This record gives sequence, C-alpha cells and structure tokens, in this order.
Amino acid sequence: MQRIGILGGGQLGRMLLQAAVNYPVETFLMESDPGCPAAHLSHHFRRGDITSFDDVYNFGRQLDAITIEIESVNAEALQQLEESGVRVYPRPGALRIIRNKILQKQFYRQHNIPSAAFHITGKQSDLHGYHEFFPAIHKLAEGGYDGRGVVTIKASNDIHLGFNEPAVLEKMIRIAKEISVIIAVSDAGELAVYPLVEMIFDPELNQLDYQLSPARIDQHLADEMKNMAVSVVKNLESPGIFAVEMFLDEEGKAWVNETAPRVHNSGHHTIEANYSSQFDMLWRVMLGYPSGNTDHILPAAMINITGAPGANGEARYEGIEEVLSMENAFVHLYGKRETRPGRKMGHVTIINDDMNMLVEDAQRVKQLVRVNNN
Amino acid sequence: MQRIGILGGGQLGRMLLQAAVNYPVETFLMESDPGCPAAHLSHHFRRGDITSFDDVYNFGRQLDAITIEIESVNAEALQQLEESGVRVYPRPGALRIIRNKILQKQFYRQHNIPSAAFHITGKQSDLHGYHEFFPAIHKLAEGGYDGRGVVTIKASNDIHLGFNEPAVLEKMIRIAKEISVIIAVSDAGELAVYPLVEMIFDPELNQLDYQLSPARIDQHLADEMKNMAVSVVKNLESPGIFAVEMFLDEEGKAWVNETAPRVHNSGHHTIEANYSSQFDMLWRVMLGYPSGNTDHILPAAMINITGAPGANGEARYEGIEEVLSMENAFVHLYGKRETRPGRKMGHVTIINDDMNMLVEDAQRVKQLVRVNNN
Repeated sequence: MQRIGILGGGQLGRMLLQAAVNYPVETFLMESDPGCPAAHLSHHFRRGDITSFDDVYNFGRQLDAITIEIESVNAEALQQLEESGVRVYPRPGALRIIRNKILQKQFYRQHNIPSAAFHITGKQSDLHGYHEFFPAIHKLAEGGYDGRGVVTIKASNDIHLGFNEPAVLEKMIRIAKEISVIIAVSDAGELAVYPLVEMIFDPELNQLDYQLSPARIDQHLADEMKNMAVSVVKNLESPGIFAVEMFLDEEGKAWVNETAPRVHNSGHHTIEANYSSQFDMLWRVMLGYPSGNTDHILPAAMINITGAPGANGEARYEGIEEVLSMENAFVHLYGKRETRPGRKMGHVTIINDDMNMLVEDAQRVKQLVRVNNN
Repeated sequence: MQRIGILGGGQLGRMLLQAAVNYPVETFLMESDPGCPAAHLSHHFRRGDITSFDDVYNFGRQLDAITIEIESVNAEALQQLEESGVRVYPRPGALRIIRNKILQKQFYRQHNIPSAAFHITGKQSDLHGYHEFFPAIHKLAEGGYDGRGVVTIKASNDIHLGFNEPAVLEKMIRIAKEISVIIAVSDAGELAVYPLVEMIFDPELNQLDYQLSPARIDQHLADEMKNMAVSVVKNLESPGIFAVEMFLDEEGKAWVNETAPRVHNSGHHTIEANYSSQFDMLWRVMLGYPSGNTDHILPAAMINITGAPGANGEARYEGIEEVLSMENAFVHLYGKRETRPGRKMGHVTIINDDMNMLVEDAQRVKQLVRVNNN
C-alpha cells in the first residue's frame, strides 16, 4: 500500500480522506490542531506546523507521495522532499508560482494568458504612482486566504487601505460572471477537465452566494474559457488537481483571475453531481490510476454554510433537518466545533435536471440554514 | 454532537464511517483487531470483544446510540444499554429474533410471512426423522455467517453433514431468482424502501456472482415482494436498517429467506446508484434526520471482489486499473491486508441506464479482477 500524506486538516483534507476510503492507501495527515475536521480520518495523524521546514520535511520523508489542502505550507521542505524522491502534488515549482501573487501574475503574462493588467508594489506609498490606474484591487503577494489580504482601491482616497508589503495592484474588471473550472493532471501529463462552474456572489456580503454547474454560458465561450484554463494548468507543468478561477467581463471577454493548486471550494458539488469527484480524482492521480469521468450525473447547485454574522463560539446549526427533507439535497458539515462570522462550516449540494429549480432550491437553502453559537 | 458507536470494524463499519463524514457526529468503534478496515476512520477506537457482555456494555454506556455491523454481538449487553437509555439500532428484541434462525423462522410463521417449511433439530441424528422432507437446507441456529453454518441435505446419505447443535431444517425451494430489499425505519416507525435488487449467483462457486438494481421482475411481483419485506420489518418493531432476502421460486411464488438487521452487502450499490445510500440512511435514522431519497439515480450492477481460490496471505490486486478505466465503474477496496479464498476484499459498482450493458460490464469486471497473495 502506498503511504500518502496531506498537509492541512481542514474540510478539504476531510473530504479528501473520505474519498480515500475507496482505495488501498495508508493515509498520513499533519496539522497543528488535533481537533481539526480531518484528523480522525487518517491512519496516522502527526501534530505539526505546516509552515515549518523541519516539521514538513520530517513528516514527508517517510511517504511515497504528499499533497496539500492549503497553499501556505513550507515550499522549501516540499522541494527537498521532491529531490529525495517523494512525489509532491502539486510540484513545488508550481506551488511557488501560485502562492506568490506577483509570480502568479508574471506567469500569466509570460504565457499570454489573459489576466487583468497589474503593477507590482512594495509598500503602501507606491500606490501614489497609480492614480490613473484606479479603481484597482490590491492583493498581498503572500499569505492571503479566503478574501483576507485583498482590498479594493476605488480611488486615491482609499490608498491608506493598501498593503505595506510586496503586493500586486490589479486593474479592476467589470465582472459579469465568475467562472471556475477544476482540472486534474496525471503524472504523465494527461488532463481531465470538469464542466465549468458559475459562481454567484452576494454583492452585500461580498462572499459566494451559491454556485451552479454547469455554468450558464454559451458553448463557444465555455470552450474558450476551458482552453484558457487548460493553458494555465499545462504551463504549470505539474500533476495534481487545480482550480482556475476566471472572470467574464461586461464586454464578454474572459480573464483568468487566480489558480489554486489543490482541491477547491468550487468543486464540492462534484461529490454527488459528477461521476468522479475532485477528491476521488486526486487519489486517482496520486495512486497512478486512470482518470475518472468528469461528466455530470446531474446539474448541481452548491451553497456554502458559513458562520452567521456576530456569532462566535460553539456551533449550533439551524435548518439542517429542513434541508435534509428537500429532495436530493446533500448536507456536508465539517465538524468544526467553533463558529465565527463567515467561517466555512459546511456546504449543501442539490442535484436536479432543471437549472431553474436548482436556483430556487439554492435560495431556499440560504434562507433555511443558519450557524449560530450556543 | 451525538456520540454514536459501532460494534464491528469490517467493511460495513468502514463504509458507515465514510458516510458519517457528512454529519455532525462523534464516532466510536469497538473491534478486537486494531488493523481492521474501519478502525482508523472513527474518532475513538476501542479494542474489545463484541461478544463480551462487559466489553459491549462498557463501550456502550458512554454513548447516545449504538449500532452493529454484524449480528454476532452480545445482545444481553445491548438489552442492558437500551434499558439504561442508550438508543440501540436495531433494538435488541429484533436482533435476538434474527440472530437465531429458529426464532427467525418462528417469527415468519407467527406473522404469516411466506417462508420455506421447516423443522427444528437439536442434533444430527434428529435428521433421520425427516427422510420425506429432503432435499432440505440445514442451518445452524446461531453463529453462521456468509455461508458458514449452512449445509445442503440432498438425501438421506447427506445426513452425516448435518449439525449436532440446535438448527433449522428448511425445505429446499427451487429458486428462480434471489431478490433483496433494503428498508430503513426511523425512530417514529416511518419506512423508506429501496428498489428491489436481483442477485445472480455463480452455480459452481455457490457465491454471489453479481447483483443488479432494480431487479428485472414485473411490477406486480415487485410490489408483492416489497410488501412482504415491509411486513417483516414492521413486525420486528425496531428502527434501523434491514435487508430482507427473498426467493422467487420456479412457479413464480415469493418467499422470505432471511433478514439482516444492519447495512448489507446487497445495498453496496446505493453509494453511487441511489440518491441516499444505505449508509447515509442509517446515519439519518440514528441522528433523527428525515429519510433520504431511496430512488435510483441510475440502475447499477455490483460485483464483490473476493479472494481467489488457493490464495492466502498479503493481498495483491490485479485488474483494478482496468476497472477504473471503464466508464462509470467505482472501485471500493476494504483495506484488508490478508486475502483468503472467498474473503470479501472489496466491490465494484457500475452505473448505467442500459441494463444489458450493466450485465456485460459486470461479466467484464469478474474477468478482470483477481485478488492473489504476494
């Protein structure tokens, strides 16, 4: 049996280990919190700091392969592990490009992949050089996650919000739709591409409202965006699984926003809606098995369950029974004891042939579910 | 979070714990072998003997609810736990009827459920009283499992094969088809019935060749058999999940064969083929959630992967990659290190709208997969 490790024990690690149950694999997990969502599902849990060279290297050197569920890991240790023969998904070279937003933007430019115009800034005062460039998005080069490390500079009087560390200033795109696609890459470089996903954002909360798969865009545009994402992944030259997030602007032009070199929130619906889920697919890649089928079984809506505003403390779920009584609604709760405002606590997937019904059901789930504290 | 325990850590416990990942539940597992298929997937593993009163009682009294993945557990301890307020699935009263084949046959007779004619025997020599009754099946009252504890007495010269302990002698039915149905029962007594499953046996090996769901029988007969199974489960007066195995004889008459008060081999296809799997459904029952949808997403074939004849030792799988390259074939390997002839090592489910294709694919999987020893 292969020995495969995961760095990070959140919900992505949890669902990855759930999918591992089908296969002959001995699983290892490293994470600082032994009460994390994934710890109890691994064969071997090791408490450790995923940002520490020694912890990651010592954890990894006993393994045949290692993967990540979060980008903020010690990439140098992964590099060392790769050099000593451990298979690393994604390859440390790809991870280093992606986890630094400056390198990531330069990578898109180098490979002629359409992506918002940008400038590199080293400190907040650098922003004064770009008055003509606003409105723009200021993104910290390293360490941002789930919306942290990102601010909008609408005009010059927002400059005080900018970062005083290396960052990227991206021209704001007038977004019509946000689209994501999950792509798996085998050791041999073979690609398996999932259908495009459409992400519907809540304009007030500035967070994902729900997502639909397949995306409601015409085939010509879907093909163009799929090709764009394939170009990103091919140029990263790494096996693993990737999520390429894209924008469609108000003029109908497609842009790459960001890439994640791991299983991703925008692929959660694949557990029920697609023949092979993103989690199943990553195991197939790492175990050297053939790719699964990325086709839909049925179209899907996916709704994140997040901590209610103002609620901090032991999580208490409302509306779960009502959702479970809806036809073909699947509830995934991540086993996090503590809720915080906006924290991802679970998700709901609904599958249905009728996209209009999916939209209605997604709205209903949003209204039903609430995560408060006790 | 509810604290729920499972007695037994084989593949059924493994797939049950895989399904638990979706829900807020703290899982406990007791089993004598810490290397068993399910141990690493529970929050809390306790090494213990599931047939020991003390072990089961001490394990169970810390829990909100407890279930089983095998019948041969200490039923007295479960009775005691029930009396002290732990919810037990199935109820010890139902378990006691089912795990003793004499009581089980008497139960069918008492409730006018069609089941093969039978005599009770206490020792082998009792069989001499039933020469006119042969051919018949002799089944040990307690302790049989997966074909063990069952012999065929074709004629008087087979009497020496009979059991010298309490047993049931059942009139042999000329079987045309073997049918199974999974039924979930909530605490409130509400039933959720899965479509009938047709089991195709290998006449030479006398073991399951593959199974198809839905069963290929006409609707009138399907309804009759479903009602028969519902009658069994209602009369057991217990929440939980049940598999009712039935025969259709050569004259088209339906009979109940046996009932299992737990998740069951004949429901494995529900993981991919039905909206809510048998494993998901048992968690819904135990957590007090509404029943899931028992409908098919797509029809399915399920093939057990068993240890090859003559192979004993560390398991080595052949043909898994070929199966994984088949469209919509799902492989489940149970993580058992050692193979033995006929041992259940895994299963493959294929889903497809076309039943003829399913039969062809099932045959192909049978030919491709082999479990040898190293």
